[in-house]
Amino acid sequence: MAKMFDKATVLAPGLLGASLGMAIKSREVADIVSIWARRPETRVKCEKQSWVDRVFDTPEAAVADADIVLVCPLVEAIYPLIKQCVSSLRSGALVTDVGSAKSLVCRHADAVMPEGTDFVGSHPMAGSEKSGLENASADLFEYRTCLVTPLLDSNPKAVETVVRFWTELGMEVATLSPEDHDEIVAYISHLPHLVATALSTLLSSKNPRWRNFAGNGLRDTTRIAAGDTKMWKAIIAQNRDEILRALTAFEREVGEIKSAISNQDYFEVLNYLERGKHYRQRMRPDRDELGQGIVPFPRLANPES
Amino acid sequence: MAKMFDKATVLAPGLLGASLGMAIKSREVADIVSIWARRPETRVKCEKQSWVDRVFDTPEAAVADADIVLVCPLVEAIYPLIKQCVSSLRSGALVTDVGSAKSLVCRHADAVMPEGTDFVGSHPMAGSEKSGLENASADLFEYRTCLVTPLLDSNPKAVETVVRFWTELGMEVATLSPEDHDEIVAYISHLPHLVATALSTLLSSKNPRWRNFAGNGLRDTTRIAAGDTKMWKAIIAQNRDEILRALTAFEREVGEIKSAISNQDYFEVLNYLERGKHYRQRMRPDRDELGQGIVPFPRLANPES
Repeated sequence: MAKMFDKATVLAPGLLGASLGMAIKSREVADIVSIWARRPETRVKCEKQSWVDRVFDTPEAAVADADIVLVCPLVEAIYPLIKQCVSSLRSGALVTDVGSAKSLVCRHADAVMPEGTDFVGSHPMAGSEKSGLENASADLFEYRTCLVTPLLDSNPKAVETVVRFWTELGMEVATLSPEDHDEIVAYISHLPHLVATALSTLLSSKNPRWRNFAGNGLRDTTRIAAGDTKMWKAIIAQNRDEILRALTAFEREVGEIKSAISNQDYFEVLNYLERGKHYRQRMRPDRDELGQGIVPFPRLANPES
Repeated sequence: MAKMFDKATVLAPGLLGASLGMAIKSREVADIVSIWARRPETRVKCEKQSWVDRVFDTPEAAVADADIVLVCPLVEAIYPLIKQCVSSLRSGALVTDVGSAKSLVCRHADAVMPEGTDFVGSHPMAGSEKSGLENASADLFEYRTCLVTPLLDSNPKAVETVVRFWTELGMEVATLSPEDHDEIVAYISHLPHLVATALSTLLSSKNPRWRNFAGNGLRDTTRIAAGDTKMWKAIIAQNRDEILRALTAFEREVGEIKSAISNQDYFEVLNYLERGKHYRQRMRPDRDELGQGIVPFPRLANPES
């Protein structure tokens, strides 16, 4: 069977980019995987990776004959990198990214794409508190969700190709507008990160040895606070307004449970705990809880329906 | 080798109590494990459990010839249950519990213990968002922390026996006062639970389908919100003052990160993220990350040193 693409190029292979390259290779989605990395030491490392066919020392050269370009640096660097190399794209090339905030990138990138090329934003909801090429793996995307964020006037064929691309990597794909995306991920991803960080930071201001006593509760609740700080700073800067709204809503929730406890209104406390439990229990299981894919992956519902 | 105890009695075998009975049996810490459960249906279930030697229909009968009594109901029911059966204890009997709040229980229980018997409070930091006998397991306590909370005038021999008991079950034990315990767990256990709950409750008030998009970040951060709500209500009521202090401190942290984002002070945002990451990275690994005990269990430092 013919592969979906002849040539795929990954720009800035960190955890996500390198995992993408590995997945493309192992799932035979493209014949040739090329990369460009800003740092020479990363390029040297990449030359030894079995999933890398070609290493380029400029992004312009790396994208020149690619069918699909995957732009994977920190979110603040995505648009500048696209702008830098759009004029080197061949006609028919498709560009997507993996950024966690979409509105700014999608609007800006769309505006600079040359005739005959397309940009469609993507946000594969896969990652880890670990970062970098060293922690990459070919199965990072399997059974995870990918949000694809076309604009109203995006080329429908290009959107479909991007959806098919992520599906080929084993992801469950949903499309939504960049603005809806940014609101939703502010709540389901960026807010949890800040909450985990606030909890860690608070505990670091108490006796740090207390952490030795912690059970799995604290461990799980704070796990993502160990994530890449520069990456998160960039995400926060790009999605600032939605994140501030989510933080304000969260402060209100904490204030409510605190009032109930303060008032010794244990009926309300129980009610509050029940609402939280009810929500959490209906979250679909992690892929690791799915018995290695034996249990069918629960279907995504459209978020806005 | 002689077992540590002839007879151990578990009162109210839920997740913790039943796991205790299993662990006592499988690690040969006592010859005979007796149980009492409030519900007849639980007593009937217990008769079929391989780790149960005797089932009693009153707590008084269950404790009558026990060397060690393990009191395992919801924290609000611990002291009433102890009070109910102290006069049935044999001389030399040792009583401990598994409650998550210690000050009230330890003071009250100590006051009613008959001459020649001892109560020493315990809090094994093991558990799960799952509850009940059905989810019990003999290895629940292995490589976990147990906090033992003697009073200043507790019998040193009894304290040592309780410490040895939990050590025999594979736990790392630290002793501290009930008051220090309650402050510390407010921060490392009760606050994380409320934070996870607030996050879940907030998301349940948005479009609940958003949860289908969530990655592991939200899943981990909210996991404990699925815990037993009645148990948590009881814990909150027993440790209310310390929990309110911890919530206030947490609100201040969230306010700080929000200000930094609002002011676009990304230097401060990065600094804040770094502090959270630094703390989290130094948390000792979970037993599951220890390679099944191959990596040595990191030593507990004394929390107050």
